[in-house]
This record gives sequence, structure tokens and C-alpha cells, in this order.
Amino acid sequence: MEKAISACWQRKFYQIRSNKGFELFVIGVIIFSALVIGVKTYSLPKTLLQVITIMDWMITLIFLIEIVIRFMGDPEKKRFFHNGWNLFDTLIVVVSLVPIENSDMALIGRLVRIFRVLRMVSIIPELRMLLNSLLKALPQLGYVMLMLFIIFYIYAAIGSTFFSRINPELWGDIALSLLTLFRVMTFEDWTDVMYETMSVYPLSWAFYISFIFFTAFAFLNMIIGIVVNVIEEEHQIEAKAEAKATGEPTLRDIQAELLSLKQLIKGADRP
Amino acid sequence: MEKAISACWQRKFYQIRSNKGFELFVIGVIIFSALVIGVKTYSLPKTLLQVITIMDWMITLIFLIEIVIRFMGDPEKKRFFHNGWNLFDTLIVVVSLVPIENSDMALIGRLVRIFRVLRMVSIIPELRMLLNSLLKALPQLGYVMLMLFIIFYIYAAIGSTFFSRINPELWGDIALSLLTLFRVMTFEDWTDVMYETMSVYPLSWAFYISFIFFTAFAFLNMIIGIVVNVIEEEHQIEAKAEAKATGEPTLRDIQAELLSLKQLIKGADRP
Amino acid sequence: MEKAISACWQRKFYQIRSNKGFELFVIGVIIFSALVIGVKTYSLPKTLLQVITIMDWMITLIFLIEIVIRFMGDPEKKRFFHNGWNLFDTLIVVVSLVPIENSDMALIGRLVRIFRVLRMVSIIPELRMLLNSLLKALPQLGYVMLMLFIIFYIYAAIGSTFFSRINPELWGDIALSLLTLFRVMTFEDWTDVMYETMSVYPLSWAFYISFIFFTAFAFLNMIIGIVVNVIEEEHQIEAKAEAKATGEPTLRDIQAELLSLKQLIKGADRP
Amino acid sequence: MEKAISACWQRKFYQIRSNKGFELFVIGVIIFSALVIGVKTYSLPKTLLQVITIMDWMITLIFLIEIVIRFMGDPEKKRFFHNGWNLFDTLIVVVSLVPIENSDMALIGRLVRIFRVLRMVSIIPELRMLLNSLLKALPQLGYVMLMLFIIFYIYAAIGSTFFSRINPELWGDIALSLLTLFRVMTFEDWTDVMYETMSVYPLSWAFYISFIFFTAFAFLNMIIGIVVNVIEEEHQIEAKAEAKATGEPTLRDIQAELLSLKQLIKGADRP
Repeated sequence: MEKAISACWQRKFYQIRSNKGFELFVIGVIIFSALVIGVKTYSLPKTLLQVITIMDWMITLIFLIEIVIRFMGDPEKKRFFHNGWNLFDTLIVVVSLVPIENSDMALIGRLVRIFRVLRMVSIIPELRMLLNSLLKALPQLGYVMLMLFIIFYIYAAIGSTFFSRINPELWGDIALSLLTLFRVMTFEDWTDVMYETMSVYPLSWAFYISFIFFTAFAFLNMIIGIVVNVIEEEHQIEAKAEAKATGEPTLRDIQAELLSLKQLIKGADRP
Repeated sequence: MEKAISACWQRKFYQIRSNKGFELFVIGVIIFSALVIGVKTYSLPKTLLQVITIMDWMITLIFLIEIVIRFMGDPEKKRFFHNGWNLFDTLIVVVSLVPIENSDMALIGRLVRIFRVLRMVSIIPELRMLLNSLLKALPQLGYVMLMLFIIFYIYAAIGSTFFSRINPELWGDIALSLLTLFRVMTFEDWTDVMYETMSVYPLSWAFYISFIFFTAFAFLNMIIGIVVNVIEEEHQIEAKAEAKATGEPTLRDIQAELLSLKQLIKGADRP
Repeated sequence: MEKAISACWQRKFYQIRSNKGFELFVIGVIIFSALVIGVKTYSLPKTLLQVITIMDWMITLIFLIEIVIRFMGDPEKKRFFHNGWNLFDTLIVVVSLVPIENSDMALIGRLVRIFRVLRMVSIIPELRMLLNSLLKALPQLGYVMLMLFIIFYIYAAIGSTFFSRINPELWGDIALSLLTLFRVMTFEDWTDVMYETMSVYPLSWAFYISFIFFTAFAFLNMIIGIVVNVIEEEHQIEAKAEAKATGEPTLRDIQAELLSLKQLIKGADRP
Repeated sequence: MEKAISACWQRKFYQIRSNKGFELFVIGVIIFSALVIGVKTYSLPKTLLQVITIMDWMITLIFLIEIVIRFMGDPEKKRFFHNGWNLFDTLIVVVSLVPIENSDMALIGRLVRIFRVLRMVSIIPELRMLLNSLLKALPQLGYVMLMLFIIFYIYAAIGSTFFSRINPELWGDIALSLLTLFRVMTFEDWTDVMYETMSVYPLSWAFYISFIFFTAFAFLNMIIGIVVNVIEEEHQIEAKAEAKATGEPTLRDIQAELLSLKQLIKGADRP
């Protein structure tokens, strides 16, 4: 009896959750919460700040209700938190609910409110798919990234060994050197860095030019790798889809037909 | 009777409008008007300025006559303004005709004269097609652009929350932060921005590096998406064109032929 | 009789010219002349300068002899100067021979000696082919380049209209504005340019952001256009080469065979 | 008898060498040695420095043992050093073993310890393959690189001829000019360089713009060349793999079958 009732409720919540209007309303609230975050960065009169605080609580409340509806509407409640996005949404709401007072925690509270904007990704399926495809592309890059890191590490070790006395702020230790090399890779005032070390080691231009050459080359290879991978995948998907969609016979079908024809002729011959 | 006359006139105007010489003349006038705009940015003697003002009116007059001819020559006058380019051309001429005196309006008048150069696009079909294909590629980018904006917005909110006291000119509010982040994305003196915040928050390099990583990755994905799309489209167009042009039989045709052959043999057998 | 002798000489010169060793010797001389040019940019003792001047004349002499041999060895002397590279080589030698004294001409003499390095391209066939393929790709870009120029021109006109009073060095006239916009397109200290105009027109960021967006978009389109074109071309060349090389029968061949089979069966039936 | 024993030992060493655990241990030691290098760039207390020195020797010892095992386990000892990576590994260990005292040699010792990180590439097969494919792509670029160098050389010669008096630090000789041009190519404060020379030669902007245009164009061509090459290669590999994997009959197979069918019919007719 109880089960039937809960199943009935579950269906009702599922209907609300699948409702297009409900989804649009939630997207609207997320956009509104993003605007509130934006407005808060301006210096505001006190009354408006109070209004915003109230709005903030209302947004949290709406998000809480939405999560509860989604949870109630889920046919398999145990699996609800297996989905990373559901976990993310719940975490954001729960942390928003915690009353925060001291300054350190207040910052975390602010950050959580900013991360609400990410709920945009969790609620729009197209963005979720886009992010998934982005994340899927990452492991392909694994070895190139490792190679790039090895190049960075070796150059940073050389840099902090030779140049740390010239400019400790740029080459003081290996962490600073890595940051400086990243700067050189983005071409950001890299000649200033170079001219400084060239005044002590006149041949240090070779260090920078070779570094730029290696990283540019590895980077280029990474991009080409991705492009080729994506194009190949598209080709395969397309080829399969085409074969299925058009119902075009394959060469194998033709061959089978020819064989049956042969048998027919042979059969016609014998008697 | 009247209709016949107007139809006769319409045909005459249509002939003028389709005339290659007429088109070249209008292109020439557009180039000349562009040159006049360029010359006006230099400090000129008074007499030359007067000459230019007269030329300006002549150009407006020629454009007015051209629009009238194009309108008269159009077989379906009601649809004339359905074409965005016709509307644009007419607007440019109409606003040029309005006598302007006070300084605010004078600026608009100047701007309109500059936008005349865009008539180049409206009159050369190849440029019009190029612009159309550019505009057509935009919606494909919709979701990646939205994703990119979400990334920008979150980082801008974080930036203006934490760094607004360090440098209000760069991080004062969310709009300034967005501009600063765009600057960081173009690698324009981004290390100056970073070193400034690193003096207060030593770990803030992670903010910049992760931002550069995310935007570069999303941007890369956008480019690859376009490349793949364009290549796929070209492939399909090409495949269709090839199939039609060569009259190459498909596998389906071969299969049909085999079936007819089978029937023939079966028919030959029975009697 | 005379003709026979000249033909005999022509063949001999042709042999020299086609000789691999002769070609390598000329390439060696070109590299040597490039080194001489490089050495001259350092401050040198007088004796070395005199040695270099003598070497210079020797290089010119060798180049003169080489051109004469190539001209003599050419079977169709009238067409010799129809080839752009032959003309270029001859011009370089002739101008090098002119004795130069006053300072203006001396500069031209120096320039001509520098352009000798370009003879590297004229003598190595692979480089000549590379340059040709580069030049062939240019007209494809024609309309995108025109579009890009229209965008540049409109923004430059707007820029010099509004910002010329703020910084005449950057926005004084349309030529300076075009240069400044090129600088903005390369992201070179573009925020300095922007912050300056934003102090007068706070909304002028839209001018820069939209300009960067449009040019980046047009540029991206240009690159994609080239990539797609090159890939398509390669495909066509490859497809043709494959079809020829493997002798693989086409579907049309199969169809023809089937038809002949049908006729055979029909023929077998009737009698 | 002796041979049998050595063969037995060889097999044992080969087993150790092929052991996954042994490989992981060596990778662990390499990562540890990289961390030690990183730690050394910070200013450390004396006791820790002594610990690091001991660790350093232990790492060298482990590497020495590893090389010996790999050498012993190799079935063909003569060919061991034909492999570039084995040579590299041995060199790194041997130089690490040399006791170094005076400052010049100490630097080399440090460098060798840094290059140990590169052993990561020699031990992980995927990285080795990646590097090989990178190196294989280089010769394809040969002629474009030569072309790029010729462009650089000509512009550097022109630059140091005309601008050396304006700023000897940037344009003093051809080597400095090459470095300055590389800087211009990376868009690093290139307008500062340009404005300086434009104050003497107002038309020198053409020098920079044309240089940027040529190098960007050559660079673009290089990238496109690589992309097209990689895609073509992938296509060929894929096409072959597909043909083999699916066992799909080719058109040639179909043709052969048709011929046999014809013969069958002809045979059936005659009697």
C-alpha cells in the first residue's frame, strides 16, 4: 500500500521534473542568481544589499526544492548520487544553507554562490555533452602533456640553476622558473626576461629560442593530434550512419547474390 | 495602358541595373567615397574641404539615383525592402540626405558616411556570399560561446570578489573584470596583472593558469569544431556532385540488375 | 656552317649547365655571398674590408659567367627572359656591375647584394616550387583579404574620427589608424591603446573587442578555407592516382559485364 | 660450458629487465631524481643538502646497476650501443660517476643530473614513440624551414644595414638582427622596435608589416603541410587496415565471379 503511494508520488515528481516549463523556470533562476552575483561586485546602497541577501536566500530555497523534486522523482534513489552532476548540485545547495559568519568561511560562501552559475552546465543537456566531449579529449593528450611537462621541468631546472642569481624573482626556485617559462611560452614580455640573462650569459638566447621551438612544436603536434582524431571519429560515425540510413547494399551482399545466381544456373543445368 | 508603360519603364531600369558598366561605375563611386573619407582624416586647407563637401553631396546624389533605379527596375516592388541589403543601402542614403547641424548629429552623419564603405559588400556578390557563409557559421558556435561566457563570468566574479581591493581599475566590478580577463586571454601584459595579485595572494597564479588553460581549450575545441564541420559539408557536397556528374551506377543499381538477371534465368528454366 | 658551330657550343654549355657539380658550385658561391653580407654587418678592420670588396667583385664575376653559360646553353634564346627567375638573376648581376659612388646609389648597391641570397630560391628547384605553390594560394584569399581590408578601413576611419584628438600619434590620420589597428590585431600592448581612449569614451572597449572579434573571425575563416582547399585538392589528386595505379574495375565496368551476361542468357534462351 | 652459463645468466637478466615491477621501480627512481633536482633549487639547510648528496649517489648507483642488468640481459651485446637511447642512458650514468670539483665541471655535473629526467622518455615506450614521430615530421619541414631562414636572413641583412645606427643593441650586427626579427615574429613589443626606426625612416613600417606577412604566411603553410600529411597518412593506414580487417570483397573479386558465371553459362549452352 505504502509502496504504491510512494510510486504514485514518484511519478508525479517525475512529471514535474520532466516538464519543459519547470526546466525553463530553473534556468531562469540560475541566470537571475548569476546577475545577482554580478550586481554584488558593484558598491551598492544598504537597502539594495538587504534586498539582495533576501533574494539570495530565496534562490537557495528554490534550488533546495528543485533538488528535492528531482530526488523524489528519481525511480532509483540509490543511484541518484552516482551521477556527478546531482552530487555537485546537492553540494552547492547544502553549502549555501550552512550559516556562515567568520571571514574565512564567508569567502567560501561567496565562492559557492559563484559556482551556482555552473549549474547552467548541469541543467542544459547540450552544455553537459559539450563538457563531456571536452573531458573525453583530455586523456588522448596524456602523453603529449607529459612530454611537455618534462620539457618544462628540464628547462626550469636549468633556468633556476644558472639564472637564480640574476633575477631571484623570476628564477629563484623551480616553481618560479616554471611560471616564468609559461610566461615565455605565451610570448609575454619574454625578451625582457631574455635580455636580462643575456647580459650575464650572452649565449642564453639559445635557451629561450630552443624552449620556444620545442614547446611550439609539441603544442602544434597536440593540436594536429586532436584534429586528426576528431576527423577520423567523425568519418567512422558518418560511414556507419550512412550505411545504415541509406540501406545501400554492400559488396558482400552483391557477392552473396552472385553465388545464389550461380547455384540457380547449376541447378537449371543438371536436369 | 498605364501598366504597360510602367512595365516598359521597369524593363528599361532593369536593363540599366543589370548593366556591367553601371555596376562598375557604382563600385568606382564607392571606392571614391572611401578615399574621400580617408582624405578627410588629414588636416586640409579650407578650399579642399569645400571641394570635398561638394563631392560628398554628389556621392549622396549618385547613390540616391542608383537606389531609385534599382527600386524602379525591381519587378516586385513590395519585396524590395525584404532584402536586408536594399534596406541598408536606402537607410545609408536617407540618413546622408538629412541636413545635420548640432555636434551630436554631425557625428552620426560622419559615421553614416563611413558605413558607405560597407556598400562594397552589398554590391559585390562574392563578398555578400562570403559574409553570409560567415554568419551561417556563427550559430554552430552557439553552445561553445555560451560555455566560454560561463567560464569568463565565473572567473570574473571570483576575480572581482578577491582582487577588487588590490587594483580597482582592473577588478573593480564584474564588467571591468571581464575586460581584464579578455586581456589575459590575449596574453596582453597578463603577467603584470598576475604579479600584482600574487603579492597579496601568492597562489593566485593558479587562477590565471587555469583560466588560460580552460579558455585555450574551449577555443581550440571551437576551431576544431568549425574545421570538421566545414570539411564534412564539403565532403557531402562533393560526394553528391560526383555521383551526379559521372553518372556512376550505385551498388543498388547493380543489385537491381542482378535480380532482373535471376528472374530471366528462372523464366528461361520453367518452360 | 656557322649554325652548326653555334649549336655545338650550345650543347656544350647546356652540358655544363645541367652538370650537378656546376649547380652545387653555384649554390656554394651563393651561400658564400650570404656569409659575406653577414660578415659586413660587423665592424671590421680595414684590411678585411678590402678583402671582402675583392671577394664581392669575384662573386659578381662568377654570377655573370654563370648567367652567360645559362644563356648560351639555352636552346631557345628568345624565351630566356620570359622566365621570371632568369630575368631576376640577370637584373641582380647587371645592377651589381654598375659602379656606384654617391650614398643613395650605394644603398641600392648594398640592397642588390643582399637580394643575391634570393638566388638560392631561383637555383634550388624545390624552393622554386614551394614559392610557386605559396603564390598560387594567394588569389584564393583575394575576397577574404578584401573583406579584411574593408573591416580595417571602416574601423580606421571611425578611429581617426573619434580618437585623433586623444592621441594624434596613434590615430592622427587614416594611415596611422590602420597601423594602430594592425598593432591591436597582433595584441601588441593593445590595452594601453584602449585604456587611453576609454578615459575619454568609456564605451570605446566595444570598438576594440568588436574589431578583434571580426578580424579573428575573418582570419580564422581564411585559414580554414586554405586547409579545406588543400585537403580537397590532395584528395582529388590521390583519388585519380589510385584509380590509375591499381587498375581496380569501376562499378560501371561491373554493370557493363552484367549487361553482356544478360544478352548471353537471352541469346541462349531463344534458340 | 662457459657459453651455456653466460646464456643462462643472460636469460635471467632478461627476465629481470622485462619484469613490469622492475620497470615501474626504475620509473619511480627517475621521478624521485627529478624531485631531488627540484628541491635543490630551493635554499636548504646544510643537513638536508648532505642527505640529498647521498641520495644523488644512490640514484646514480641504481641507474648504473639498471644499465648493467639491461646490458647483461641483451641477447646481442654488440648491438646494445647501436640503440641511441642505450647510449644516452650509459653516457648520463658515466658522466654522473666522474668526480667533479672545479666550478666549470660542477656545472656540467649539475646539467647531467638534470638530463636524467630525460630518461623518462627512454624508459616509457609511448614517449619514445611520440618523440620518434616528432623527429620524423621534421625533415618534411626542411624546405619550408630553409625558405623561412632565407626570409629571416634577407630581412636581418636589410635591418642591420639601415637601422644599426638607430639602435645598435637591436640591429648592431646580423646575429642581433636575427634575434630582433624573431622577437618581431612573436609580436613581442614589436611596435616599440618599429616606432623607433619610423622616427628616422617614416616608411620602415613596410619593412615590419611585410616581414610579419611573409613569415606568418610561410608558417601557416608549414602547419597546413603537416596537417595534410598526417591526415593523408592516417587515411592510407586506415584504408589498408579496413580492407584487411573486414574481409570485404573488392570490386575485382566481384568481376572475377562474374567472369566465372559467364563461363558457366557458356558451358551450359554448348552441349
